[in-house]
Amino acid sequence: MAFLNDHYLKLKAGYLFPEIGRRVRVFCEANPEAAKRLIRCGIGDVTEPLPAATIAAMHHAVDEMAVRETFKGYGPEQGYEWLRHAIAQNDFRDRGCDVADDEVFVSDGSKCDCGNILDILGDKNKIAISDPVYPVYVDTNVMAGHTGPANEAGAYAKLVYLPCRPANGFIPEPPKKHVDLIYLCSPNNPTGAAATRGQLEAWVKYALENQAVILFDAAYEAYITEAGVPHSIYEIPGARECAIEFRSCSKNGGFTGVRCAFTVIPKTLQLAARDGSRLPLHPLWLRRMTTKFNGVSYIVQRAAEALYSAAGKAQVAALIQHYLGNAEILRQGAGKAKLKVFGGVNAPYIWVGTPKGVTSWQAFDKILNEVNVVITPGSGFGSKGEGYFRISAFNSRANAEEVARRLPELKW
Amino acid sequence: MAFLNDHYLKLKAGYLFPEIGRRVRVFCEANPEAAKRLIRCGIGDVTEPLPAATIAAMHHAVDEMAVRETFKGYGPEQGYEWLRHAIAQNDFRDRGCDVADDEVFVSDGSKCDCGNILDILGDKNKIAISDPVYPVYVDTNVMAGHTGPANEAGAYAKLVYLPCRPANGFIPEPPKKHVDLIYLCSPNNPTGAAATRGQLEAWVKYALENQAVILFDAAYEAYITEAGVPHSIYEIPGARECAIEFRSCSKNGGFTGVRCAFTVIPKTLQLAARDGSRLPLHPLWLRRMTTKFNGVSYIVQRAAEALYSAAGKAQVAALIQHYLGNAEILRQGAGKAKLKVFGGVNAPYIWVGTPKGVTSWQAFDKILNEVNVVITPGSGFGSKGEGYFRISAFNSRANAEEVARRLPELKW
Repeated sequence: MAFLNDHYLKLKAGYLFPEIGRRVRVFCEANPEAAKRLIRCGIGDVTEPLPAATIAAMHHAVDEMAVRETFKGYGPEQGYEWLRHAIAQNDFRDRGCDVADDEVFVSDGSKCDCGNILDILGDKNKIAISDPVYPVYVDTNVMAGHTGPANEAGAYAKLVYLPCRPANGFIPEPPKKHVDLIYLCSPNNPTGAAATRGQLEAWVKYALENQAVILFDAAYEAYITEAGVPHSIYEIPGARECAIEFRSCSKNGGFTGVRCAFTVIPKTLQLAARDGSRLPLHPLWLRRMTTKFNGVSYIVQRAAEALYSAAGKAQVAALIQHYLGNAEILRQGAGKAKLKVFGGVNAPYIWVGTPKGVTSWQAFDKILNEVNVVITPGSGFGSKGEGYFRISAFNSRANAEEVARRLPELKW
Repeated sequence: MAFLNDHYLKLKAGYLFPEIGRRVRVFCEANPEAAKRLIRCGIGDVTEPLPAATIAAMHHAVDEMAVRETFKGYGPEQGYEWLRHAIAQNDFRDRGCDVADDEVFVSDGSKCDCGNILDILGDKNKIAISDPVYPVYVDTNVMAGHTGPANEAGAYAKLVYLPCRPANGFIPEPPKKHVDLIYLCSPNNPTGAAATRGQLEAWVKYALENQAVILFDAAYEAYITEAGVPHSIYEIPGARECAIEFRSCSKNGGFTGVRCAFTVIPKTLQLAARDGSRLPLHPLWLRRMTTKFNGVSYIVQRAAEALYSAAGKAQVAALIQHYLGNAEILRQGAGKAKLKVFGGVNAPYIWVGTPKGVTSWQAFDKILNEVNVVITPGSGFGSKGEGYFRISAFNSRANAEEVARRLPELKW
């Protein structure tokens, strides 16, 4: 009798975005006029077209695939050397981080990598996760059997939740107790907070002392504007011995529909085997990728490479500036609405405190009904997200300005 | 102390293709003149350019991504509805197989799906695997901890190996004992054999009686030329209750560098939970894909869709005809060389028996040295592959003809 993976049965229903969709649908059906002025600032998906350099690169690559002499079949599963080199050089070595070309693994998505990384890790590790948090970190651990069941508040047994509050700048402090794996996302989704150098130094120190591993998700790195905020965990001495970094082309190049990302596994990162010996993790990920993956589309890899050309870099900078301009406008709008505003400076997300006594979902309904804007309730990201909501800056300038005008109209 | 996944340490080194590469390199360095006439019939990778319909579709899709109004961000993780519909209609319903659009999950590779499917299956299933076999089925089970260590012959404890021999047409019979998961690949890599309707009926009967699941890999379906050979497991009554099918655009559309595949999970397929209840597997795969995957590149999905247009179908048929024409030429060449020849009729692989007393690797060295052709030693696919080698028909016509001319020159 074939068995399924029971751990999946522990998962709470994918509640957040389907529920947002349902409420928006009900509202639009009941209010067809208001529906016409609806502006969506919910899901964190880019809205602007791809950089011209990537368009040209893809047309060229498609043409190569049309001719026998330049046709490309299977590429290296871990990514073409020219792309791994461009990434290691531009994103790391040019910033003073010691990352070799072959420590970069190109993939089709950071979400995939964040989930798949558990394949090569043991099943007895103690896992720490921020609260609020990107739900994928939690759900993939539930699926892998690393947690117990969820309680009524949605928290899973065995996970260590690290609260993110205004007092810690929404970046958790290392816990007093021992953990083995730590998920850190900076700049953060959903709070828009970015970890300071001091905060990351404290985490690297903790990880080295505890022989723990930091899973550092830097998908929003391109949005960092403040000097001194690290762009990579490898800016912190010692990180090569304790950290894996996830990066993506989704939010800088606007590749959410194109699909390219990468993960860095330093060859100096060693983990324990059951017999207590310490072994490098790099060969395991290489083996995982060559066995369970067949590389990113050649056409897409050429597009990613184009992001590192001079033209590509300028075009990406303009895209980031557009979204960060939106973020600033939305910050000011939320401020005029007399709401507590966080984030939006080093990230495309604004994290807004609801007025006293108003829950995240109450705020969602009020904003939808009164000013016809869709936001994301903070409680959907974890219990410590209650009392907040997230506004995404991924939008047209006109929409961002209109939302900023409408927010102060709210009567709380 | 963070632990790694010890099961990876059980994996035998990825011996086959690196070792082939090493021997070819040594030979070419020692024989620079002979190296110039080297022909590679080793790795099963396509060589001909993409069908024109897919090139046009990709150019169009790239242009859409350059304009705000037609730009596509995140798509549905399980694939766009128009592609799932085209697949379900053309590959299944038009052939009389009952497959609904939403039972098709689009992915970036069949290799990925074959490995990832283990995510949603329990860890106590008894697993049966053909010998010889596509190594990914074995290695992904080793990684997931479903096996014991390998013995000296490379066979892993706990796996049930099903021998493929000339007597069973290289398609294994159902075992006498009980197993829970069965990997079947038809048309087969590496043997080129295709399962008859009777053979598949026997397997479906076995699976239903044993409440087992068949993992049916039909990546080479497009190469079936013989009438009556099933193109899909769902041609067999009862398969919707016991089978998952993996398909790919790699070997029909030539997408090995483009990356698109799909998996069918019927909603009527139920597996056991630990409490003995039977639950549908479909929601688990949906949850897996939405949580650990972000969909295939929009541009690639448009290319895949173009394979189902009238022009696309004709162009794919021409590609298949090209490779099967090579296969027939290679079959004849191997026949003239007085070797036992199998496969190559419903598959792009020719499976050749070595002369008595000659091992697979001895044949490899001899063919490389004497006629400067690279083949794949059968023993690399499992112990029952010893005494065979695989010739790939993925090549230019001129190369196939030249290899067919050279094979009879061999002096055994």
